[in-house]
Amino acid sequence: MTLQIETPAVLVDLDIVRRNIRAFQAYADKHGLRVRPHIKTHKLPQMAELQLEAGAIGITCQKVTEAEAMVDGSDRIKDVLITYNVLGAEKLARLERLNERVVLSVVADNTTIIDGLSAHFAQASKPLAVLVECNTGADRCGVATPAGAADLARRIAGAPGLRFGGLMTYPPVDGAARVQSFMNEAKRLIEADGLEVATITSGGTPSMMHAADAPVATEYRPGTYIYNDRSLVARDVASWENCALTVLATVVSVPAMNRAVIDAGSKVLTSDLLGLTGYGHVLGRDDIRIDQLSEEHGRLVSDEAIDLVVGQQVRIVPNHACVVTNMVDAVHILEGGTPKEKWTVAARGRVL
Amino acid sequence: MTLQIETPAVLVDLDIVRRNIRAFQAYADKHGLRVRPHIKTHKLPQMAELQLEAGAIGITCQKVTEAEAMVDGSDRIKDVLITYNVLGAEKLARLERLNERVVLSVVADNTTIIDGLSAHFAQASKPLAVLVECNTGADRCGVATPAGAADLARRIAGAPGLRFGGLMTYPPVDGAARVQSFMNEAKRLIEADGLEVATITSGGTPSMMHAADAPVATEYRPGTYIYNDRSLVARDVASWENCALTVLATVVSVPAMNRAVIDAGSKVLTSDLLGLTGYGHVLGRDDIRIDQLSEEHGRLVSDEAIDLVVGQQVRIVPNHACVVTNMVDAVHILEGGTPKEKWTVAARGRVL
Repeated sequence: MTLQIETPAVLVDLDIVRRNIRAFQAYADKHGLRVRPHIKTHKLPQMAELQLEAGAIGITCQKVTEAEAMVDGSDRIKDVLITYNVLGAEKLARLERLNERVVLSVVADNTTIIDGLSAHFAQASKPLAVLVECNTGADRCGVATPAGAADLARRIAGAPGLRFGGLMTYPPVDGAARVQSFMNEAKRLIEADGLEVATITSGGTPSMMHAADAPVATEYRPGTYIYNDRSLVARDVASWENCALTVLATVVSVPAMNRAVIDAGSKVLTSDLLGLTGYGHVLGRDDIRIDQLSEEHGRLVSDEAIDLVVGQQVRIVPNHACVVTNMVDAVHILEGGTPKEKWTVAARGRVL
Repeated sequence: MTLQIETPAVLVDLDIVRRNIRAFQAYADKHGLRVRPHIKTHKLPQMAELQLEAGAIGITCQKVTEAEAMVDGSDRIKDVLITYNVLGAEKLARLERLNERVVLSVVADNTTIIDGLSAHFAQASKPLAVLVECNTGADRCGVATPAGAADLARRIAGAPGLRFGGLMTYPPVDGAARVQSFMNEAKRLIEADGLEVATITSGGTPSMMHAADAPVATEYRPGTYIYNDRSLVARDVASWENCALTVLATVVSVPAMNRAVIDAGSKVLTSDLLGLTGYGHVLGRDDIRIDQLSEEHGRLVSDEAIDLVVGQQVRIVPNHACVVTNMVDAVHILEGGTPKEKWTVAARGRVL
């Protein structure tokens, strides 16, 4: 079926979106976990509203300007966690303005960040909630030990303008046991200091259906689950039918029997591999590999005849949905398989 | 030295830009090659003007909307080649409007594209120039043989609304000998049909200083040369001192002795590897590897102590400059090492 949409284009199937949101919310409700979706996947206030309607208690953003775009785009977004070490005068000023509009919290994994936040918010009209980021094995940010987490919790609690909000981690895949042991111990140490650990928040779509294996956590932050992608299908946690985001492309050249070229390259699909081979999955064509991308061309190859003609449309499930969202100014929303409208990706490109 | 710029940010050093433009223009002038830079690297009308001032005869774009943004942004851009198979009603309508504003040409490597262009331009007030794209070994688009090129040249020449503009190729690295033999033979066949081959255009920065090894070519389309990047340094065709585009980032976490995390991830640096290991080069720190990117975090590791502190700025030469340009709404222009102004990336995100 040919869609009357100029290509390349990013399509989002709203029926699948709703199903994906419901599936995790049901799991979380059953296990008494609060849901705070990460909006990096969709960057759309409208999608955040669907998540909130389904039962989410707020949203997660990665950057201050991303949070601004979301709050500007929906007055139903009232609770925002920015899972980032924020520093720098301009970002702190933005943070303060945001803190006056919504229930806001950020994270910190070192004293420089905490001291910077405190120096700014000591003068603010409202204190800022700060959670301690903990490294439970992903080895990105985060304090290395529960004792380190307790040290920072004390420092936050004693810092003018700040209040201690709890503990946050972004664990590796299948990291629930480590989350449980780290957070249990950190919580014990912090409570021994007389502080309350209001929130313990974990995240990550690949392991979300095992979130309850770390019962110490009170909250979960799935991101990609709303759209799913080829990386999640490869991990057997989603199927093609659950992939809400696809890239619509047109064949522009069939220069050899087993090769075709489409009008979508790395400027739409991105070069994210996430451990996979090739740059996406052509729906309905298991034989095709997208083996090479340049900015505006994608190369499709097959061991057999490629059997595509110039002008034909293909739909691709990208390796990584979140990064594709960031490549386009707007996405096409489908309902009942039909394009209904275009939504501007409000928080696209917000890196500050 | 700390720059008063919010990070992450893309910096472009205009002194280096001017030097890079001059170096290739001098080579091309010496060898009687016309220069038609590909604007995909900078996406900035102002940079195109610098290239034209230095002697370029026009610009190359990859997409119709990219060309529109460039022509809208500078009345000194009067000659545009779009090296792409264009099809679809809306794109053809845009192409027609553009054809009335500038000297415009496109390419085609198959009859469906030629027939689509002709069906549209037969009704237009001005014919469209079409070059035949030839595959000289890169195995992306392009006709496979000189005889195939001659067939399409005849078809273009006989198509209402079109005129045959010549031959185009995007060769593989070190492909000059293949360009020479393919184009020589194609030219001979086409001239035997009584057609003039006005332009033979080749491209690619890595081999640009060997462009004259294919003397049959009349024109060259370098792109990345204006900025250079880590991939070109790895190929020994540029040095760090010739890299005009850098990413300015701030250390936000130093969670372990040999690990630091910066506020630039794949949303700025992109996941493009171009055959390299790691996601960029930290200037002045040969010991550091950027071994992992998530969207908003870059992980820096060293075999020794990382010796960075939270709040410290680093400058990174990305693997691939062109794709970084596309990630940001504006770049910071440096002159004499100092930030002078911000330029909006006019042709960012133009995928149609």
